[in-house]
Formats: sequence, structure tokens, C-alpha cells
Amino acid sequence: MNKDILVHNNNKPCYHIVISNTFEELALRIKTTGLNFKRICIVTDSNVAPLYLEMVSKACRMEADRVESFVFEAGEQNKNLDIVRKLYAFLIENEFDRHDILVALGGGVVGDLTGFTAATYLRGIDFIQVPTTLLSQVDSSIGGKTGVDFDAYKNMVGAFKMPKLVYINTGTLLSLDARQFNSGMGEVIKYGCISDYDYFKWLETNAGSVISRNQDTLAELVFTSCENKRRVVEEDPTEKGIRAILNFGHTFGHAIEKECGFTMYHGECVAIGMVAAAYISAKKGYICDADKERIIDLIRRYKLPTDTSGLNLDRKAILNDLKHDKKMIAGKLKFILIKHIGEAFIDTSLSLDDLNEALEYITE
Amino acid sequence: MNKDILVHNNNKPCYHIVISNTFEELALRIKTTGLNFKRICIVTDSNVAPLYLEMVSKACRMEADRVESFVFEAGEQNKNLDIVRKLYAFLIENEFDRHDILVALGGGVVGDLTGFTAATYLRGIDFIQVPTTLLSQVDSSIGGKTGVDFDAYKNMVGAFKMPKLVYINTGTLLSLDARQFNSGMGEVIKYGCISDYDYFKWLETNAGSVISRNQDTLAELVFTSCENKRRVVEEDPTEKGIRAILNFGHTFGHAIEKECGFTMYHGECVAIGMVAAAYISAKKGYICDADKERIIDLIRRYKLPTDTSGLNLDRKAILNDLKHDKKMIAGKLKFILIKHIGEAFIDTSLSLDDLNEALEYITE
Repeated sequence: MNKDILVHNNNKPCYHIVISNTFEELALRIKTTGLNFKRICIVTDSNVAPLYLEMVSKACRMEADRVESFVFEAGEQNKNLDIVRKLYAFLIENEFDRHDILVALGGGVVGDLTGFTAATYLRGIDFIQVPTTLLSQVDSSIGGKTGVDFDAYKNMVGAFKMPKLVYINTGTLLSLDARQFNSGMGEVIKYGCISDYDYFKWLETNAGSVISRNQDTLAELVFTSCENKRRVVEEDPTEKGIRAILNFGHTFGHAIEKECGFTMYHGECVAIGMVAAAYISAKKGYICDADKERIIDLIRRYKLPTDTSGLNLDRKAILNDLKHDKKMIAGKLKFILIKHIGEAFIDTSLSLDDLNEALEYITE
Repeated sequence: MNKDILVHNNNKPCYHIVISNTFEELALRIKTTGLNFKRICIVTDSNVAPLYLEMVSKACRMEADRVESFVFEAGEQNKNLDIVRKLYAFLIENEFDRHDILVALGGGVVGDLTGFTAATYLRGIDFIQVPTTLLSQVDSSIGGKTGVDFDAYKNMVGAFKMPKLVYINTGTLLSLDARQFNSGMGEVIKYGCISDYDYFKWLETNAGSVISRNQDTLAELVFTSCENKRRVVEEDPTEKGIRAILNFGHTFGHAIEKECGFTMYHGECVAIGMVAAAYISAKKGYICDADKERIIDLIRRYKLPTDTSGLNLDRKAILNDLKHDKKMIAGKLKFILIKHIGEAFIDTSLSLDDLNEALEYITE
């Protein structure tokens, strides 16, 4: 009943994504990674620890001599170098060496921060992802992007570091509040827009069943999302080219996220960013207005915002953030547009006017 | 007249080491890396900036639209995350993007810190090494080990990141004071001990010419050292196995460095560490006492310390540091011994008594 996806890196088998609806197989799956460690440090946050730390610790204790846990205060504002430093100090104190491993138990913040620590502690130790939010299950736990924010710039500091295993228990999705669950749908809808028109239609058809969190539907949704992500990252693991399409909606998304002071969730900001990207795609004549509306409708269906109303954002600040976007090449913004629903491409020809007009569209 | 070494990584050509005695070819060599950047940030320290920053900036300006420089206070105590954070902030302020590059101009501290920043800024940008000390020219600039110290633990935080070019101007060696120059000889003698008996003999024969810093002799010395390092790192780029032999002398070396509060230079501490390692190698019957003495004699010839006299070190603290050494595997210390001069191997069988006895030998 469990699903299993094998992810390759540079054409070599690299790690498995296991999709289950319990933690029952976690110990066995850790064992079959073949890693030779003595100690495991589970890194998690204050939201997730009360729910799953005991269960996951128990599984880890079956495979390790010692299991430690490092719990930090939940929230994007803690995805920073100060927490990473505390984690380094904790690992040193507990004598973790190169052959021991970290387990990231939680959402995107936990996964990104743990992955970055694993990439840099002793010049790199192994780690396992146990994502517990929809966002991290369908997106951030896969593909080896790790990092922390710096001075409110998202993921400014980071590394590419592949996990040794991604173990997904879709049962954890039942513990998310509606807003957090829907936020994850932002990235899910993205896959439909950029690389999978069939999936886009499936999301239109199955909205009711997804929103009511039917377990079979969720298993299919997580699987299809992971498959979409796998295909893109296998082709371009370190984002030299095509992987950039995964940033559809993220250029505006990151800027909005920053300017609202991280009061909005990542997926919510990406949803608004996708509206901006769809608007520009339509304006440039790549997609018709009806397709733009269809994207906006789907975003609405999953109760995600399609504009910044109520946020009272500073447009100039957003434009300034866009100029500092990581996805710049030699001073030109790399922006992701779509040719039609299910196919994205990288555009480097947008003018400041184009961005401004899209900004007006989502802020009015 | 210049020498050129091509270093491979995973069997693919990766970067050149150029050994010259001027900066004249630097601009051309940066150009022939084929990197497509607009901006260069030269990272250097307060010792090196007054000597070479202007010359190197001039070369960089021939190849980049903008050249910035980031100068930090010289000293191992500044090889830390606080300086890295300042450098991140500087790069953000100056809008450095993924396609721009860093140039590390200076000794090991500058190279390690710059390399780590390059490995982690925006999940990795390119960098070039322009080492100006003997230690960095023969050792730390080559092989992609980058990192910073953490709570006085050396290189506790880091990454493997290959430079795009190593440009060595041996002319800079003339500006080093005698102690700093000799410190670099610690790593040079190491190559003789672990992998190149002919080189060991050459170092015995040519001591006078090396110490008087004859330029042709230095060119040969730097070339042979780089060749030795290249051979080892090509075989094992991320230290899964054989590369560990480069840590000959470093287990005790790092502990001494820490316990004297970094008042001793790295190469001086490694020299004392090599005496400890030679002592254990002799005690275990791998080398004869005469060879141990020959190593100690060579270290003395280059005016390097062979014991900790005058340092007033706390033995217990050193033993405790050894236990926290990065080169631990599942609780066992990985120690580098030699079978004979010119061949090292990894030993994991040493007892605490062995270490204690060696510690007594170098502290009495």
C-alpha cells in the first residue's frame, strides 16, 4: 500500500521517498538506507514535538545507540543562523561525529534548517527528512535545497545537500489547521501549472475530496506532486537551468512574504505570486485570459488568496525586493512564465514596467 | 616559466593551479576560467590588503565590470561565523548574484572563510584562490576544504567546494616574516613524511636554499607540494578514506592550537603533532627510532618546534580535545601513522594510553 519513489542524482540512484500513512515502517526504512551511524539527532520545532517526537524517537531508538532531540521555537523567523549555531553547539556537546545523522521532523523550516546544518557540520553529515506538513511533503523535503534566511532575505544562505531518505506519513496532514493545509496547496497547484496539465485537471475535479483530506486522495496527491518534483530536479539538480521553473510564483511570492513580515504563509504568498505570473503570461500573449482565470479559480477553490488585499503592502519595497531576487543573472531578473497550463519556461526579458503592472494587478 | 597543474574532481578536469612569481598573468588566467560574471569581490585581511590588494584589484578590473573588496582583521580568531555573516551582508548590499565570484586573497584563514562563504551564499557561487602564504600555497588553497572555527573548535563548520582557479605568486613569500614562512614548512615536511620520500630527502638537502627563499627553489617546493596534495585529493575528494592521511600531525596539532589560544601558528602545532605521530609510529614498531629522529631533525632544521615547552599547556584539556576530534568514527579516533618515511596509513586502534604517552613525549 505504501508508495515508493527512487530519486536519482547525476544519473545514479540517490534516495527513496516513502509515502505511507503511519510511522510504522520508519525504523525499517532507516535501516535499509545502509547508513552506519551510532547516534541520531532529531531536529524539530515546538509545534511538532508534542505531536510526533515520541513516536519518531521510538522508531529511531530501534536503529541507533543514542537518540537526542533538538527542539526550537516554531516559525519562519527562526529559520536563521542563530538557531543553526545553537544546533552546532548541541551536536558538539553531544559529540556527534561525521558518521552520525540528523532527522528533520517537521515542516519546511525544520527541513531547510536541518539540511543546512547537515551540509555544514563537520563539512557535511547525513540527514533524513520526515516532513509533516503538506508543503514540506510535496516540495521542500525533496531535491536537496537547504538553507536559512538572512536579514529577512529568504534562503540567502544555503547549500545543495541530498537527504538519504524522505519518509512521508500523510497521516500527519490531519493535524494541520485548514490555513496551513491550504498553504501547501499553493505548491501543489504550481506543479499543475508548470509541468502537468492532467494533474491540474485532477486538482479541479477532486477539490472536494482533497479539502476533506480523504487519505487515499492525499496519498495520490502527495505521490503525484513528488513525481513532478523528482522529474524536474533529476534533470537539473543544482538549478543551472530548467529547475528554475519550480520558482513559478516565487519571485513575487518571496517579496510579499518578506514585506508582510512573514505573517502570511509561504504557499499563500506563492499563490498570489502565481496570479502575478499568470497575469504577465497572459499579457505577453503566451496564455489566453480564460486560462489565466482558470488558474485564479483553482487557487480560489483551495481557499488561497489571489491578491494582497488587507495586507497593506508597500509597493516600492516589493519592487526593490524583486531587484534583489536570488534568481538574477548578471543584473537581469529570471522570471518564470507559462506557455500554457502545464508548461513553464524561463524569461529574462521582463521590464520594470511589466513587473509594476503585475504588481498593480495583485495589489489593487 | 610558469608551472601549471590541472586538478581533476571525480575524474573530470576541475581547475588549474598556476604557479608564477608575479601577478602579471592573473587577469588572463581569470579570463580563461571561462566564468561569466559581472562582479568580483576580493576578500582579504588587514595584513595582506596593504601589500597586494591594489595589484590584484587592478588585474580583476580588467575582467569585471565592478570590483569590490571586503577586508577583515587578520588572525585565526576571526575565522568565524560572525565575519562570514558580515561578508554575506556585504555581498547582499552590493547585489552580488549567483553568477558573480569571490577572490580569496591571503593565507589559510582568508581562503577557508572565503571558500565557505562561496559555498553557502545563495547556495553556492564560484571562487578563486590567490594564496599569499606558504601554508596556503602548499596546502589549504587546494582541494576544496573550506570552513570556519566554532567555539574554538577548528573547521567545525564547513563544506567541500572546489575553487575555479588557484593562482599562486611565489613572490609573495618574500613578504612573510621568518616565523610565518617556517610555519608553512610544517605542511611541506608532512608531504615528505606521508607520501614522498624523495621529497623528504630533497627537503633535507635543500634546507639552506629554501630558508634563504631562493625563488627557483621555492617554485619547485610549491610545485612538488601541490602535486603531492593533488594526488591525494583526486583519489578521495571528500575524505571518505585515504585523504585522511593529510591529517598526519593534525590530531595533536589542532588540540595544541586550541589550547594555546591560537598563539602558535597552525604549521608550528602540526610540527609538534608530527613528532607525536612519529613517536607513536616508532613505539608501535612501524618505523625505527632512527627514522623518528630523522623526522624530528628535519622539523628542527626548519626552525619549527618539536615539543610544547614554554607553552604551559593543560594536558587534560588536550586529551579532552582529542576525544572531540572531527576525525572520529563511531567513537573511535582515526589517527594517521607512518609505515616508513613516505607512506602513511589510517589507524583506528590507538588507546587512550597511547595518546597519553605521546602527549607526555611532546609536553615533557
